[in-house]
Amino acid sequence: MSRLTFPAPEADLLEPHLPIHDISSSPVSSSRPFVTLTFATSLDSALSLGPGIRTALSGPQSKAMTHYLRSRHDAICIGVGTAIADDPGLNCRLDAASRRGPGTSEKAQHPRPIIIDPRLRWDFSRDNKIFQLVRGGDGLAPFIITAVTNPSAEKVKILEDHGGKFIVLNSSPASTLSSATIPSTSDTLDWLAILAAVRQQGLHSIMIEGGGTVINSLLASQNKTLVDSVIITIAPTWLGKGSVVVSPEQEVEKRTGQRALGPRLTGVRWIPLGEDVVVCGRLQ
Amino acid sequence: MSRLTFPAPEADLLEPHLPIHDISSSPVSSSRPFVTLTFATSLDSALSLGPGIRTALSGPQSKAMTHYLRSRHDAICIGVGTAIADDPGLNCRLDAASRRGPGTSEKAQHPRPIIIDPRLRWDFSRDNKIFQLVRGGDGLAPFIITAVTNPSAEKVKILEDHGGKFIVLNSSPASTLSSATIPSTSDTLDWLAILAAVRQQGLHSIMIEGGGTVINSLLASQNKTLVDSVIITIAPTWLGKGSVVVSPEQEVEKRTGQRALGPRLTGVRWIPLGEDVVVCGRLQ
Repeated sequence: MSRLTFPAPEADLLEPHLPIHDISSSPVSSSRPFVTLTFATSLDSALSLGPGIRTALSGPQSKAMTHYLRSRHDAICIGVGTAIADDPGLNCRLDAASRRGPGTSEKAQHPRPIIIDPRLRWDFSRDNKIFQLVRGGDGLAPFIITAVTNPSAEKVKILEDHGGKFIVLNSSPASTLSSATIPSTSDTLDWLAILAAVRQQGLHSIMIEGGGTVINSLLASQNKTLVDSVIITIAPTWLGKGSVVVSPEQEVEKRTGQRALGPRLTGVRWIPLGEDVVVCGRLQ
Repeated sequence: MSRLTFPAPEADLLEPHLPIHDISSSPVSSSRPFVTLTFATSLDSALSLGPGIRTALSGPQSKAMTHYLRSRHDAICIGVGTAIADDPGLNCRLDAASRRGPGTSEKAQHPRPIIIDPRLRWDFSRDNKIFQLVRGGDGLAPFIITAVTNPSAEKVKILEDHGGKFIVLNSSPASTLSSATIPSTSDTLDWLAILAAVRQQGLHSIMIEGGGTVINSLLASQNKTLVDSVIITIAPTWLGKGSVVVSPEQEVEKRTGQRALGPRLTGVRWIPLGEDVVVCGRLQ
């Protein structure tokens, strides 16, 4: 598979928005990983033309940036909807010359795929792209975070044969969950528990890529303090009404009963990248 | 009222996206004005938190840019919803030093407000901001484009006292419109007729500012060839679900039955401006 190049000047601009190279010695790493929320949208904040429709949005430079970000994080996280819709590889295809820090060897340092699948909706097999890449030595097997306590033996075997596993949250006897009690959306995803579980795997940084449900839940006011960095690519196009969009739920100000402004980025930097723009910042 | 400053370097970057100074000699001016579609959104493409809610989005530099654009267009256009919600002034508050071209005198060269109000929903009086500004010598009275053939004498007098007027479209005897037959949304606004009417008033360039209904109708495939330039300011914040958004109707490809990609900008330039970014381009 062809390798991608990401230029050093653009990498320099991104640096303040990325986990430090020796992050395992960083204070943030004690209870949760460094969290980068990153995704690509249209001008109308759409990730895709509709649920389950894979939509090419951003240009080649932006794609190379995504793989540069993958080289700079220990883990890469998506929701189950994206896993089902995209059959993604989640590996790093950056060329050696574009690498920085500890993972600068010729061989790619791939991020660990983390798939959030509370009810185990992802019906994967050995033929999925992610496992093909692992067998070809070009990627890592996923850790699937779920609330289902009894994944099928067949799925466990596929995962473990490739070096992956299930991570079951909320599995203490006191809080045994049947699939009926698990929320169907991730509005109520317990990100604190998810991130703690990721950190317990020795993963010090994670980029969270999508899809809409996952991103919108992280932009909710109760979760936004968990996000260390936001890196968004915007392509100069519209996808139109009915698309899957990034847009958090509106909240109402208790005092006035009026709609409240949503989250805002601070320490903002805009970086034109080909026809696209990249905006970096922190959630205020 | 305090005057705004817009720096020359940013003005230089905008220049390729603006009507030429001597536009009255330009070929585009024969049947319609040069059309600049310009507005400010959040990252989730929202103009405001909800219908009728005025929402401050962009920073001071972006606001100054808006007034620079006003100094560079003969007319400024909004839909009736924005007129009702915002009670806007639609004048130019740019300082003399930031001006360019023919209108560089100390006295502001204000754009002519054009308000699209097919059914005459705007119940204005002499107290509206736009008329106060005219009486203070700091703005022009609006031309209201409507399909209603019999505006009230009181409203006609207010407009004419200030130098404004109604422009009635589709008023030929063959197509007499009762208010019942006038479309309630501007999806079906006849932009060709509107722009021809504007041009007939000797106005060679127009910036169209909003709101959502007007902008989305201009992004529809049947209208996008009427737009010469697009200038969008994006503020690094989200307004959330339920906001008024810029997002055109999706179209379906006849051949495949699949959702089609929406309009795309070409000749794109991204200009960081304070915390915001400005994207300029043409509709492909």
